[in-house]
Amino acid sequence: MNDDRNTRIVLAARPQGEPTAENFRLEHAPLPAPADGQVLLRNRYLSLDPYMRGRMNAGRSYAKPVEIGEVMDGGTVSEVIESRHPDLRVGDVVLAHGGWQTHAVADGRTLKRKLDANVAPLTTALGVYGMPGFTAYVGLHEIGQPKPGETVVVAAASGPVGATVGQIAKLQGARTVGIAGGEQKRAYLRDELGFDVALDHRAPDFAAQLRAACPDGIDVYFENVGGAVFDAVVPLLNDFARIPVCGLVAHYNDKALPAGPDRMAWLMSQILTRHLTVRGFIQHDFIALYPQFLREMGGWLADGKIRWREDLVDGLENAPRALIGLLRGENFGKVVVKL
Amino acid sequence: MNDDRNTRIVLAARPQGEPTAENFRLEHAPLPAPADGQVLLRNRYLSLDPYMRGRMNAGRSYAKPVEIGEVMDGGTVSEVIESRHPDLRVGDVVLAHGGWQTHAVADGRTLKRKLDANVAPLTTALGVYGMPGFTAYVGLHEIGQPKPGETVVVAAASGPVGATVGQIAKLQGARTVGIAGGEQKRAYLRDELGFDVALDHRAPDFAAQLRAACPDGIDVYFENVGGAVFDAVVPLLNDFARIPVCGLVAHYNDKALPAGPDRMAWLMSQILTRHLTVRGFIQHDFIALYPQFLREMGGWLADGKIRWREDLVDGLENAPRALIGLLRGENFGKVVVKL
Repeated sequence: MNDDRNTRIVLAARPQGEPTAENFRLEHAPLPAPADGQVLLRNRYLSLDPYMRGRMNAGRSYAKPVEIGEVMDGGTVSEVIESRHPDLRVGDVVLAHGGWQTHAVADGRTLKRKLDANVAPLTTALGVYGMPGFTAYVGLHEIGQPKPGETVVVAAASGPVGATVGQIAKLQGARTVGIAGGEQKRAYLRDELGFDVALDHRAPDFAAQLRAACPDGIDVYFENVGGAVFDAVVPLLNDFARIPVCGLVAHYNDKALPAGPDRMAWLMSQILTRHLTVRGFIQHDFIALYPQFLREMGGWLADGKIRWREDLVDGLENAPRALIGLLRGENFGKVVVKL
Repeated sequence: MNDDRNTRIVLAARPQGEPTAENFRLEHAPLPAPADGQVLLRNRYLSLDPYMRGRMNAGRSYAKPVEIGEVMDGGTVSEVIESRHPDLRVGDVVLAHGGWQTHAVADGRTLKRKLDANVAPLTTALGVYGMPGFTAYVGLHEIGQPKPGETVVVAAASGPVGATVGQIAKLQGARTVGIAGGEQKRAYLRDELGFDVALDHRAPDFAAQLRAACPDGIDVYFENVGGAVFDAVVPLLNDFARIPVCGLVAHYNDKALPAGPDRMAWLMSQILTRHLTVRGFIQHDFIALYPQFLREMGGWLADGKIRWREDLVDGLENAPRALIGLLRGENFGKVVVKL
C-alpha cells in the first residue's frame, strides 16, 4: 500500500450462503479530496464484525445493505492526514467508520471520539472499549439485568462481545457460563476471563454439559449465536429469564429455513409460560449510555478488571479471508485488520 | 342444584388435543365445613378462560396442573353463606377462586375484593373489571406501551382481553386493528368497540387484508392467539415493535409440533433485525398495579368509555361444553357460567 492512492475492497457479488473470496474485489482509486468541514483519514485499523455478513445481503438487516461495487462497511481507527475541520488536526487519531480501505473522507462532525493510546491501546476502540464492548454493556444494563447469584450464559465467549458480557456479569455478582469452540478457547475463558464454567459447544454431549453447568437454570442468556447453543439453552431458562439478542452468527450464512418440525410456536409458548423477555437490539439503540460506558469501562480497563484479546490480521488484502473465518468461529478474540 | 351438597366438576382424564366431555366428570359431595378464619362460599358465577386448557395438561404451564380427580380451577363470583372470619359476613359477595363447583371453602384472608353491584355488574369482576381486563391493562401499560398514532393489533378481539386491549389502546390515541372470527364479531368490533379496522381471520385473503389495514406497519401486537394470525403479523412488525404475549389459544390443543420448515431461528432473526421486544406475562406479574387498574378501569366503566360483552352459560353442567367451544372461538364475549 502506498499513500498516494486509496486501496479498497468492494462488494463484488452477493454471497449465496457462506461468503467466498469471489464476493470481494480489491481496487485502487485516487485519494479522495476533503471538502470544507471534512477530513482525509488514513485508516490504520479496521474492525471485522459478524454484522458485516448481513450487510452483504440485499435484504433487510439492521441497516441498508452494501451495494454491489460499494466499499465494504466497517469501523476503523484512523489518523487525520488532511483537515478542513476546525476541531481536527493532522495527526489526530479518531474512531471512524472508514470502511474496508486505506483512506476515507469523513465529515468532521461525525468524528466524535479522539483516541489516546495512553488511555487505552488504540485498537480497543474497535473491541472491548468500542462497539462490541458497548453492545455487551448495554445488553446487560438495559435487558439482561443480572442480579447477584443469577446464572448468565453467553456463547462466542472468547469474542469481544461474549468476553465482555461474561466479565461484566461476573463483576455484578452473577454466576457466568461461557461457551466457545475448542479446548484452547475454553481454557482461555476459564483461566483468563474468570468464567465460572467454560464449555465447548463442539462436545458431543454439549447440551448435557450445559444442563450440568446450570443447576439453578439460566436467568440471562445473552444471544449472539443461535443454532445448537440456543436449542440447548431454551429448556434451561428460568421463569422471568431475559434474552438480549444482539446476533445470530450461526444463521448468517443460512440459505434456507432448516427442515421441520416447526418450533416457532413452541418458542412462543416457552416465552409465554416462562414469562420470558426476548429483545433484539443493537448498541446504537442505547447510545445515550455511551458516555457512561466510556467512564465505567475506562475504569475497569485501567484497574485491570476487564481483559480482552485481539486476533490481529495483517493487511487489507487478508480481510475477506478473515471475515470468512470469523463467521466460522475460527478467530480467537477480536478481529482487527492492520492496514 | 340444591344447597345441602356440593356439585362439582373434576378432571376425569387428561385431554389428548382438544378436550372432550369425557375429560370431565360431574360429582356430588357433602358441603365442606369452614375452619377458623375460613368461610363457606356459594359460587354464583364461574369464569371460563383459555388458560384452563393448560391446567388440564400434566406438563408445565403457568401454574401447577389440576390433578386427575381434582376440581377444575377457576375464578368465581361467590357469596359468603357461612363465615368464621371477622371481616366477612354472610351475604358478602366476593371475588374468589372457587373453582368449577357450587360451593367452596376459602381462607378469609385470600378474599381481598368485595363486590358491589352498584359499582359495576358483579360478573364484570370475572371479565373487563377483573383478570382479563387487568391482563389487557398491564400488557399495554408495561409492555405494549402504545404511543398516539401507533398501530395496535389484537386478535380474539371480541373476547374480554382483546376487546379491552383495543379500547384502552384507542383511549391512548393508537390506531387499532381488531381480529375476530366471523362477520357478527367483526361488526361488533367495528360498531360497538370502536376498532379502526375489524378483520375476520377466516377470510381466505386474511394476510393481505391485514397488510392493507396496517399501511404504517404494526407497533404493538398483543398476542393472545398465535397460529395463522401471528404468521400474518410478523412480516408487518415495525422496528422496535412490542409483543406482549399473554396467550396462544390456537396452540393449546396442539398434540405435536407442526411440520416444517423450522421457523424458530427465522423468528429470532426477526426479533434481532427489527429490534423487537417479545415478552410473556400473566397479569399477576404486575399485581402491584391492581389498585391503579381498579381506579382507572372503574372510571372508564362509569363513564361508558369501555364496553364489554358477556356470553352467559346457564348451569355448571354446561361448563365443559362451553370451555370446549371457547377453545374453538365459538364464544362471543366473556364466557361466564351461572351456577
